[in-house]
Amino acid sequence: MKNYLDKNWKNSMRVKFDYNNMMQEFIGEEGFTKEEIDACMPLAKKSFDLLNSSRGTGMVGWTELPYNQDEVVKDINAYAEEVKGKFEYFVVLGIGGSALGPIAAFQALKHLHYNDLPKEKRGGPKFYVEDNIDPERMSALFDVIEPEKTLFNVVSKSGATSETMAQYLIIFDVLKKKLGKDLGEHIVCTTSKDSGNLIKIAKEENYKCFYIPDGVGGRFSELCPVGLLSLAILDIDICEILEGAKFMDEICQKADFTNPALMFAVTEYLAMQKGRNISVMMPYSDGLKFMSDWYAQLWAESLGKFNSSGVSVGQTPVKALGVTDQHSQVQLYVEGPSDKVVTFLNVERFRTTVEIPHGLEQFPDVSFLSGHTLNELIQTEQFSTAYALSTHGKMNNEIILPEINAFTLGEYLFMLELATGYAGGMLDVNTYNQPGVEAGKNATYAIFNKKGYEEKKKELLNAPKKKSDYIC
Amino acid sequence: MKNYLDKNWKNSMRVKFDYNNMMQEFIGEEGFTKEEIDACMPLAKKSFDLLNSSRGTGMVGWTELPYNQDEVVKDINAYAEEVKGKFEYFVVLGIGGSALGPIAAFQALKHLHYNDLPKEKRGGPKFYVEDNIDPERMSALFDVIEPEKTLFNVVSKSGATSETMAQYLIIFDVLKKKLGKDLGEHIVCTTSKDSGNLIKIAKEENYKCFYIPDGVGGRFSELCPVGLLSLAILDIDICEILEGAKFMDEICQKADFTNPALMFAVTEYLAMQKGRNISVMMPYSDGLKFMSDWYAQLWAESLGKFNSSGVSVGQTPVKALGVTDQHSQVQLYVEGPSDKVVTFLNVERFRTTVEIPHGLEQFPDVSFLSGHTLNELIQTEQFSTAYALSTHGKMNNEIILPEINAFTLGEYLFMLELATGYAGGMLDVNTYNQPGVEAGKNATYAIFNKKGYEEKKKELLNAPKKKSDYIC
Repeated sequence: MKNYLDKNWKNSMRVKFDYNNMMQEFIGEEGFTKEEIDACMPLAKKSFDLLNSSRGTGMVGWTELPYNQDEVVKDINAYAEEVKGKFEYFVVLGIGGSALGPIAAFQALKHLHYNDLPKEKRGGPKFYVEDNIDPERMSALFDVIEPEKTLFNVVSKSGATSETMAQYLIIFDVLKKKLGKDLGEHIVCTTSKDSGNLIKIAKEENYKCFYIPDGVGGRFSELCPVGLLSLAILDIDICEILEGAKFMDEICQKADFTNPALMFAVTEYLAMQKGRNISVMMPYSDGLKFMSDWYAQLWAESLGKFNSSGVSVGQTPVKALGVTDQHSQVQLYVEGPSDKVVTFLNVERFRTTVEIPHGLEQFPDVSFLSGHTLNELIQTEQFSTAYALSTHGKMNNEIILPEINAFTLGEYLFMLELATGYAGGMLDVNTYNQPGVEAGKNATYAIFNKKGYEEKKKELLNAPKKKSDYIC
Repeated sequence: MKNYLDKNWKNSMRVKFDYNNMMQEFIGEEGFTKEEIDACMPLAKKSFDLLNSSRGTGMVGWTELPYNQDEVVKDINAYAEEVKGKFEYFVVLGIGGSALGPIAAFQALKHLHYNDLPKEKRGGPKFYVEDNIDPERMSALFDVIEPEKTLFNVVSKSGATSETMAQYLIIFDVLKKKLGKDLGEHIVCTTSKDSGNLIKIAKEENYKCFYIPDGVGGRFSELCPVGLLSLAILDIDICEILEGAKFMDEICQKADFTNPALMFAVTEYLAMQKGRNISVMMPYSDGLKFMSDWYAQLWAESLGKFNSSGVSVGQTPVKALGVTDQHSQVQLYVEGPSDKVVTFLNVERFRTTVEIPHGLEQFPDVSFLSGHTLNELIQTEQFSTAYALSTHGKMNNEIILPEINAFTLGEYLFMLELATGYAGGMLDVNTYNQPGVEAGKNATYAIFNKKGYEEKKKELLNAPKKKSDYIC
């Protein structure tokens, strides 16, 4: 039986949220009182109810992903089985939500130097996620892959993402020159079933397709085929990740202090009201490093906008990594302005243990480390950093994963998706749109002479010219 | 003749700072007036004079690195020549300032998939920088290197950096088991000449050493052997990077509007006074990606602290990447609170050109891209993002590199080091210390029972116990 079907195992893998160090009792007057938290709960409950009643409707399709994908999972697993041994390289073309989830899960669940491993140890294709259009990077990619041995996953819900479609045009051209008509099996699309260009292109060219449900936006898409396909091809059990999400959903059934997603939303919301406009996500684990990047998009793009009264709200996410950034950012976090909440992302049991050997007994400044393990050192440094922040009155909290595995990852992802949904309701924003991105897109369209953007072009031509006085 | 000895070439490679979009004329009332800038110049001049008069003294040794390293450079180049062909792998053990510069320069100046290239195309050893102590990462490293074919560079000024010295103990143990007494040539140290453990260990074990000058702190160390040694072993011309720094130093000789480092400091300082507590560094180039990480340490650790009146100051650096983070952070930057300055790091000429082919004429949403290049697309998107920010009244500015090469990198590094020095003076902080890091370190020492930390241990044991009420 799979672990994740066992109730005791699941309970032992429960992801937890610890907000002791947000409270006055632990950090002094900069912290919250219990009364402040209590006073916020009615608003939290309202937002909880709103999200609950919207489940599966409109853009809240993501809540149902742990439940409604049996057929999709079967299809993905069958396809993954088919292609796994067939290709030497697997390249995702996608940006934003199409890339951040796959990158984060790959880093967490595969070997930390996966692409550097010899083929037999790797056990699957080399993996690249191309989430930028830097020409030097595109060109560098072709120096390390052989297109005729590569599977490309083109990910775009609309099929109109300029970056991804530009990349598609480039790889299509390369594949066509190398393989002629046989290029079809080198491309698999993840896109909308009914609308947009990519599905039409896929049908014309006979590409295999997986579908992004209408009600699932980019930043909530890791648990749909956007994320699941990569994971399956990389030999990760996608049922396990979905079971983890489901387990977290079960944990978050009440609008009270037992709901970690809600308490994350409540404490961050209250922190924002007290001027904490920065949210640092700081995993103490290289495997979880890119979980911060995934969170940064989710939190920034969902909450950073005008609320229904037209007021700008939102909190700026900062990606940090423990212990590395202790030697970069922690001076500021400890002594700088009280303008942030630091969330530590902790792992209780690493997948390996590394001992620190003896050998420098003549140097007490070093030898005190010997006989301990790196595991103890990294965890102790996290504790000590939290302690330093707390004694300086700086808000901090912890998300704790018992281990890093597909199940706990599913929990983490779903917990923060729920927290974002709750926080969006509390801040009174539309959590699921991104109107602020349009202004920039439209300017690009105008400069590229896309039809329909003639007025925008005029506007740009009439914009004030830069002054050389302000350039040095 | 080397390019960088030619005056015209140097002028064509001048790095510039453009702050038009910080000004009212371009972003409306959220921007500065010319008068505000003018009014700040006396303070700026005071700080400029202070830094100038401190050059080469105390912890301001870094200003002289472009001038006083002829012998050091010779020694590094000779050593690099000797070891380059001898090792298959080159691993830096270091953290913070010992790692961020080497990582940033490696990313900028070597192939973007350097380690994935076949040996003959790589032309040098595979390169790893181990700047964390995650046991999973340490163990993963040994899966992809062969210690007996590896050169380890142990970098720690004090020789008491717990993370680096723990790593040293581990690799020493591994090497000793594999190579016995012959391990010496596998280790090269970069450390203080006169004090600390590492120099003593190096002498005992007969390791080759390079020295970190007393007056150069970690975050100002990229242009001393800390950074130069890696670069030389990776076959990068270290004279060129120093010449770039020297050129920038020459540009920054006056306390006026011609000094880009000073104008960066002035505009950020004024922005902080107006509540912009966040500084986003957003390169539109994968090559420059880790220049943000390097900047984040420099800016955070130098400025984030108590000023001489005991007030917490500093600005939180945020690392972003264009165009990627347009699909993650730009919604927040455009519509969220006016609490940040976005600095774009732009490249005028990429080292390659990638065309976007034709082929989807039936889809106007995509075909408008065809015939353009990725180069045009990435630069247009940067312009459009700046335009969107500006029309929404959000402060932004640009640092412009004509090309990415060792010379312009030297300029960039030195410009921001100077800017940090100026800003530190304006904020009235000690730019070169990091007292806030001690609290965490001391707690770790206490938990690890290091001698002398018995009182701290008592304090920790008496700290209030966490409440399970605040864990869910």
